[in-house]
Amino acid sequence: MMIPDISTSGLLTDLYQFTMVQGYLEYDLHEPAVFEFFVRKLPQQRNFLIAAGLELFLDFLEQVRFSQTEIEWLARQGFGTKLLDYLSGFRFTGDVHAMPEGTIFFPDEPILRVTAPLPQAQLMETRAINLLHFQSVIASKSVRMVLAAPGKQLVDFGLRRAHGAEAGLLAARACYLVGFAGTATALASQRWGVPVFGTMAHSFVEAHDEELAAFEHFAVANPKDVTLILDSYDTEAAAHKTVSLAKQMAQQGIHIRGVRLDSGDLGAHARRVRLILDEGGLGHVRIVASGGLDEYRLAELVCSQAPIDGFGIGSRLDVSSDAPFLDCAYKLEEYAGKPRRKCSEDKATWPGRKQVLRHDGPDGQMARDLITLEDEPLDDGEPLVVQVMRQGRRIGSALALEQIRVRVAGQLEKLPVQWKGLDPAPAYPVEIAQPLRSLAERLDRERRASGN
Amino acid sequence: MMIPDISTSGLLTDLYQFTMVQGYLEYDLHEPAVFEFFVRKLPQQRNFLIAAGLELFLDFLEQVRFSQTEIEWLARQGFGTKLLDYLSGFRFTGDVHAMPEGTIFFPDEPILRVTAPLPQAQLMETRAINLLHFQSVIASKSVRMVLAAPGKQLVDFGLRRAHGAEAGLLAARACYLVGFAGTATALASQRWGVPVFGTMAHSFVEAHDEELAAFEHFAVANPKDVTLILDSYDTEAAAHKTVSLAKQMAQQGIHIRGVRLDSGDLGAHARRVRLILDEGGLGHVRIVASGGLDEYRLAELVCSQAPIDGFGIGSRLDVSSDAPFLDCAYKLEEYAGKPRRKCSEDKATWPGRKQVLRHDGPDGQMARDLITLEDEPLDDGEPLVVQVMRQGRRIGSALALEQIRVRVAGQLEKLPVQWKGLDPAPAYPVEIAQPLRSLAERLDRERRASGN
Repeated sequence: MMIPDISTSGLLTDLYQFTMVQGYLEYDLHEPAVFEFFVRKLPQQRNFLIAAGLELFLDFLEQVRFSQTEIEWLARQGFGTKLLDYLSGFRFTGDVHAMPEGTIFFPDEPILRVTAPLPQAQLMETRAINLLHFQSVIASKSVRMVLAAPGKQLVDFGLRRAHGAEAGLLAARACYLVGFAGTATALASQRWGVPVFGTMAHSFVEAHDEELAAFEHFAVANPKDVTLILDSYDTEAAAHKTVSLAKQMAQQGIHIRGVRLDSGDLGAHARRVRLILDEGGLGHVRIVASGGLDEYRLAELVCSQAPIDGFGIGSRLDVSSDAPFLDCAYKLEEYAGKPRRKCSEDKATWPGRKQVLRHDGPDGQMARDLITLEDEPLDDGEPLVVQVMRQGRRIGSALALEQIRVRVAGQLEKLPVQWKGLDPAPAYPVEIAQPLRSLAERLDRERRASGN
Repeated sequence: MMIPDISTSGLLTDLYQFTMVQGYLEYDLHEPAVFEFFVRKLPQQRNFLIAAGLELFLDFLEQVRFSQTEIEWLARQGFGTKLLDYLSGFRFTGDVHAMPEGTIFFPDEPILRVTAPLPQAQLMETRAINLLHFQSVIASKSVRMVLAAPGKQLVDFGLRRAHGAEAGLLAARACYLVGFAGTATALASQRWGVPVFGTMAHSFVEAHDEELAAFEHFAVANPKDVTLILDSYDTEAAAHKTVSLAKQMAQQGIHIRGVRLDSGDLGAHARRVRLILDEGGLGHVRIVASGGLDEYRLAELVCSQAPIDGFGIGSRLDVSSDAPFLDCAYKLEEYAGKPRRKCSEDKATWPGRKQVLRHDGPDGQMARDLITLEDEPLDDGEPLVVQVMRQGRRIGSALALEQIRVRVAGQLEKLPVQWKGLDPAPAYPVEIAQPLRSLAERLDRERRASGN
């Protein structure tokens, strides 16, 4: 019944991948296939997206295996020897092209391209989407918070409300990439080096008969990083206790660094608490706030100049509450050298291997993108899709989180202000190059002629 | 950079748990603490909730450990020897009382109570919420789909859009508990025995030059479970191809079991496809539909009598798109034998160890719940909170998924029809017993008198 180790299992996929691969193997469909991952359309509350999750997916490609137990399970499901033998020695040996993590992107733009023998590329579909989708969901949500609260220290508090353990870790990573200061999640810090932050909870106060005693005990036990929670009973009374405690603690060389507000009108409490702290000589003590925050509430608090130095953000960040999923897909665009096009109603795809060229305006700001076929001549735009894996091995080393943070910061500098706001803006211009349109039309004509 | 093994790590928690436990250890706050987990209020689109995740949390309690690497990481964060020694030998030795998985519950009702020495109960907070919250989110979302589409075969297709790998597994488990037929997620089936279902994807069709050849290859390679996807190009044309293929395949003893529709007006396509199949002598071939489904769309299709036998449901299920999180908490209700109460604005808690008594009406249907103190005399209601763990060991064996399914079915039978619909209904009656109210008032008086 235990939650399985899910990091490298090849069974982390949909059953139909195996039925399809069984068909590919039976009919020798081993030619190179090209799949691309893209988002079909933006949620109403997003003006742009940030690509994230690539390095984790490349890790998965390097390490994915089928264990003997898993092969036996597939055998019990009725799969044949050919498939089972294929999976026993499975290694991903394909190429990957992608937008580096931290790249701003828009609908229809491929952020990942997997080129591999068809069975391999097919089997990797589910985890490709699973990782890139969720990391991009959180990066694209949390960057709105970063933009709404410039200069404020933002910390992820959301593990408890995240959708399982991995979601909590992934959310901590994604929001750090786009500018959060860090996370409260210890495991994300230990494994990935995301800076970790902690305060105290109400239970610590409640476990004591006196709030002041709780504050004192906490400060003595954690002298290097004292942040006291003020709202267990009466916020302003707790602020006064903080002032009296601070004097006493100072004699022991212990300094209170911050206080946290977690309920009520955060702006009003912050003003009153700031006054109490300042009058008590605690002008250096920081105020952090938490409780039901999202980018809209952050913007309100910032605009009203509430004296809050940092924010802890939980549920609405870790589940991206207003847009918990993106309409996205990983689609076959070429097989055996021929471009392919799915033509389902409202879900037709752009065929072939594609590139995205980003064009800046004279002011150096992003002006428009062009989606084109990879083998068309480049124009003066910046090609966003680059090769990151060759024959199953990363090209160069993985981007460090700090490098991705720098990339995001650079991208945001070049994003014109009209797409940086919280309100819906007109769509950023993304054009489809004429040769790509022509290819799609030709494929449609050929398909109709063939009777498909 | 690899996703860590997250199943049993003690670092799967917030940093402040460690700062608080350092304080507890420093001041010998080792007395029994009682924490309860409850939901504060229902999302607008939920009339009831289903408790889920308990067995997974009990697994975690039995297995959680701090590895040497993790202890060293904590040392580098500046934690002291007392805490590090405590964590090195950490075992959970407390008691757990809970509503069994599959129990219907309402706001303010504790579905979990952890009784353990304060540092232990504190450290388990984050994962307790993380597991119970998400499992209950998905159980409570997916049961609406079960109620909206009685008699239809519902299958979870959501791993790719779930929030990471564990979310996909947990979602597969939760929706199976409440009546789904199963999942497409192979790993959830291999590890937990959730029945697994698969069809085929558009890429299989696209990889072939001819749709009909793709269908034939798929059928021959997977003769025991042939479900063909019809909407890669033209749905009705594909239905005709299915008819002609079926005749040819029948000579080889291969029978087509189903077809899948994944785009366009699913009801209209289903009617036309049903007619084509029936006229072609394929009355036995099942039609399954997928693509952007949720309980509202299911209800529409069912009410309009669309000839669809089964549904594959993805994103809106696995992320519970209309209510991706619940306002919930794990709160200290008693310490060292004394009831405790947090009094934050709009977040005050009911103190003490509590029981929920469910009262049926004369028709045998659920009529009202009473939240009372555990040590008050029971009335004729059914006590929902039972002991499930003693001194760190489960009482009896874990409930099997099948047992939980039976429990859910029984609970739904007793739920009056007014709370079974998709539209918001008046709140189910949940009363707070007078002794509990009196205790809360007494604690408030005492607190004010003490100057907290």
